[in-house]
Amino acid sequence: MTDRPQHLIDIASQDTTFLRRVLDQAAAMRANPDAFRQAGSGRLMVNLFYEPSTRTRVSFEIAALKLGLQVVNVAAADSSVKKGETLMDTFRTLEAMGPDLLVLRHPEDEALVPLAAAAAPGTHLVNAGSGSRAHPTQALLDAMTLLDEHPDLSQAKVLIAGDLHHSRVTRSSAALLKKLGIGELRLCAPPGLEAGPEVSAGAVVFDDFDAALAGVDVVMMLRIQHERLAGMDIPDPEAYHREWGLTPERLALAAPQARVMHPGPMNRGVEIASEVADGPQSLIQQQVANGVFTRMAVIHELLKV
Amino acid sequence: MTDRPQHLIDIASQDTTFLRRVLDQAAAMRANPDAFRQAGSGRLMVNLFYEPSTRTRVSFEIAALKLGLQVVNVAAADSSVKKGETLMDTFRTLEAMGPDLLVLRHPEDEALVPLAAAAAPGTHLVNAGSGSRAHPTQALLDAMTLLDEHPDLSQAKVLIAGDLHHSRVTRSSAALLKKLGIGELRLCAPPGLEAGPEVSAGAVVFDDFDAALAGVDVVMMLRIQHERLAGMDIPDPEAYHREWGLTPERLALAAPQARVMHPGPMNRGVEIASEVADGPQSLIQQQVANGVFTRMAVIHELLKV
Amino acid sequence: MTDRPQHLIDIASQDTTFLRRVLDQAAAMRANPDAFRQAGSGRLMVNLFYEPSTRTRVSFEIAALKLGLQVVNVAAADSSVKKGETLMDTFRTLEAMGPDLLVLRHPEDEALVPLAAAAAPGTHLVNAGSGSRAHPTQALLDAMTLLDEHPDLSQAKVLIAGDLHHSRVTRSSAALLKKLGIGELRLCAPPGLEAGPEVSAGAVVFDDFDAALAGVDVVMMLRIQHERLAGMDIPDPEAYHREWGLTPERLALAAPQARVMHPGPMNRGVEIASEVADGPQSLIQQQVANGVFTRMAVIHELLKV
Repeated sequence: MTDRPQHLIDIASQDTTFLRRVLDQAAAMRANPDAFRQAGSGRLMVNLFYEPSTRTRVSFEIAALKLGLQVVNVAAADSSVKKGETLMDTFRTLEAMGPDLLVLRHPEDEALVPLAAAAAPGTHLVNAGSGSRAHPTQALLDAMTLLDEHPDLSQAKVLIAGDLHHSRVTRSSAALLKKLGIGELRLCAPPGLEAGPEVSAGAVVFDDFDAALAGVDVVMMLRIQHERLAGMDIPDPEAYHREWGLTPERLALAAPQARVMHPGPMNRGVEIASEVADGPQSLIQQQVANGVFTRMAVIHELLKV
Repeated sequence: MTDRPQHLIDIASQDTTFLRRVLDQAAAMRANPDAFRQAGSGRLMVNLFYEPSTRTRVSFEIAALKLGLQVVNVAAADSSVKKGETLMDTFRTLEAMGPDLLVLRHPEDEALVPLAAAAAPGTHLVNAGSGSRAHPTQALLDAMTLLDEHPDLSQAKVLIAGDLHHSRVTRSSAALLKKLGIGELRLCAPPGLEAGPEVSAGAVVFDDFDAALAGVDVVMMLRIQHERLAGMDIPDPEAYHREWGLTPERLALAAPQARVMHPGPMNRGVEIASEVADGPQSLIQQQVANGVFTRMAVIHELLKV
Repeated sequence: MTDRPQHLIDIASQDTTFLRRVLDQAAAMRANPDAFRQAGSGRLMVNLFYEPSTRTRVSFEIAALKLGLQVVNVAAADSSVKKGETLMDTFRTLEAMGPDLLVLRHPEDEALVPLAAAAAPGTHLVNAGSGSRAHPTQALLDAMTLLDEHPDLSQAKVLIAGDLHHSRVTRSSAALLKKLGIGELRLCAPPGLEAGPEVSAGAVVFDDFDAALAGVDVVMMLRIQHERLAGMDIPDPEAYHREWGLTPERLALAAPQARVMHPGPMNRGVEIASEVADGPQSLIQQQVANGVFTRMAVIHELLKV
């Protein structure tokens, strides 16, 4: 692992020094965004999204524009994939057009791995979410938001709760928090939605949500997709909310002034109550704002613009 | 109402002084567009469209680019709405990413009202068409086009004709013409498609199209959607054209050299004959051209770039 | 025909001097792309695509951005066409918004002809593929790639093979190679997919693929669409590959070190074997890279930016 990686594919394979540098850079960019307005001038980023996404695509696009890059968007609906082209051929075609950076979201877990191996040295790849496995910039923006509250993470207790199995946030965020030396990482999922052993290693796993919440400093809630409920013996979203939703009553079990995070988009009244999402302990808007600075920092560090 | 509003949501709630200033600014920008090429440099606009639109979205986008702003487009098809996110959450998420201006089109009449109330002071909202109620920049571009022909509007007779009930242009345009002191505003709609009392107040309402046309200086025709015909005892578009279409013969009933406007997209041979749309009395291309300058002026006045 | 045309609609109607100038300019831009970064500053291009396309749309967009133009994308899905607007009205509407250049892809062969005739002198139209008839920038990028290998085209033998009937590449590429004085142009298509007499005039037409390949310097393979096979007594893609696919064995029939081209997107294992597409004789990536420079040159020469 070199000091300056070519790509950002996942958290696990990245050097902690690089990840800390991205977080420091993101904070510096937030403090003085205008200083970077021309940093990426003359560079080109392609957003290639095989799944729809508002927040992640727009966040990357704004991050690039704030650095002075040019941005081209390609959505799956446009894509030559419809004409039977392989992902590798689409990638090679776009790469031949000379972008500096290619940001990819794809439904398959390992979609980026062969592309990263095939990329020319001047082509940088960033994973904007792949399958249910990796979403490294989400992990970085979550860490930035956590660090704002707890500059010494070794003193912090963080709970990640909800559908740990299908969330692409789980694996990346857990890996990053461990690398950054989190004090205690707790995990809690409804039956059948637990995280795998790689994620659980080094974490404290709870099956009782109330017990998991006791005394934590930060709760990161994950989205539940409605179509999962049928497989869980949970009759409807209201029932999920009663058993697994973060309500004001449940939040009161956490530490005083505990903070609440959610990667969005939220299902209000399902995994999180509106009073919590919009309440004074919520960091949800800060997460989104930090997302832009985090992605600026990733682009900056990969391109050394 | 302050001198410089934060948002442009509808015409009715806007100060007439501000609306006149936008119109003056639009004319100044048309006279010397190059003077404004860097005016919005470093600012960011998000186009958030929950309904498809070519002309309005592209017009806003070009207006912003001509002022040097950066533009990010979000279409409903991409949207987190698909994942059950509320409009308010999508708005808050985009707002947290730091745009200066958010341009929204939405199928619901009152969609923007709660967003405007929730917006931070530095976030400006512009309505690009909401429900069948408001389309304030269309009203402004229509007024700009009218003023080119009739600098003293108090001497002009204007007829708005067609589907007044479902058109988002009706309410905004009627409100603006009244605020600008139009000489005479006439309204004429097929049975069942009449405007409501708020629009009709202060206007002269006709049920006979030929009588409504007599002596008017300008006819603004509105689009009829094919699916409305079934509910109107009108068997087909040809029948609508015979009864409610602006033909050369009908136009001859208006004042000599009367002008014709249409907000587009046109149904040729339905609400308007091609000979009229493409004829020497048509202002339809000028409306589109003025749309870009009007939107430049709106952006400029809201942002004070 | 003037020295500097207003539009690029097809190859056949263009002056050879102009086409050669585009090719020279493209090579100059490839040699020193940074010299042109501000050349189109203050100019606006609209991409209007009535068919989905990744490679062509993105290639035009990147070309324009590299010249400093601003770009607005309009996809058919957004389009007012859905509301019954004619192509001419959509064109006139967009033209009234003041773009310098409009790039259009459309499923109909002659879609651009009436628009080109109606365009104001300051509006330039470029065909990005129309029907099965014309794709002039593809022909130019193919010619640029050929010229890199064979600066004296009068010494080169080129075979275009595959579905000549439905390919929009066929007609434009054949016309351009003839204008540039190609040594020998060969054509070979499966039964029922032959080119028409205009394309075949001046070419050597083969019905045996192996015979056609004998001794050629360059093979340009065309894409076969799966839905064509049913009409051809060919049971499946594998059968097509056996009879009409460019395999390493077949390529060995061509001249030593013969080059292989394909306009993409490829059907690997159908009209072309992966070993050939990815092998040392393939120019497919160079075609894509040259596409950006070719389109930069077209924009530059039409706009004289």
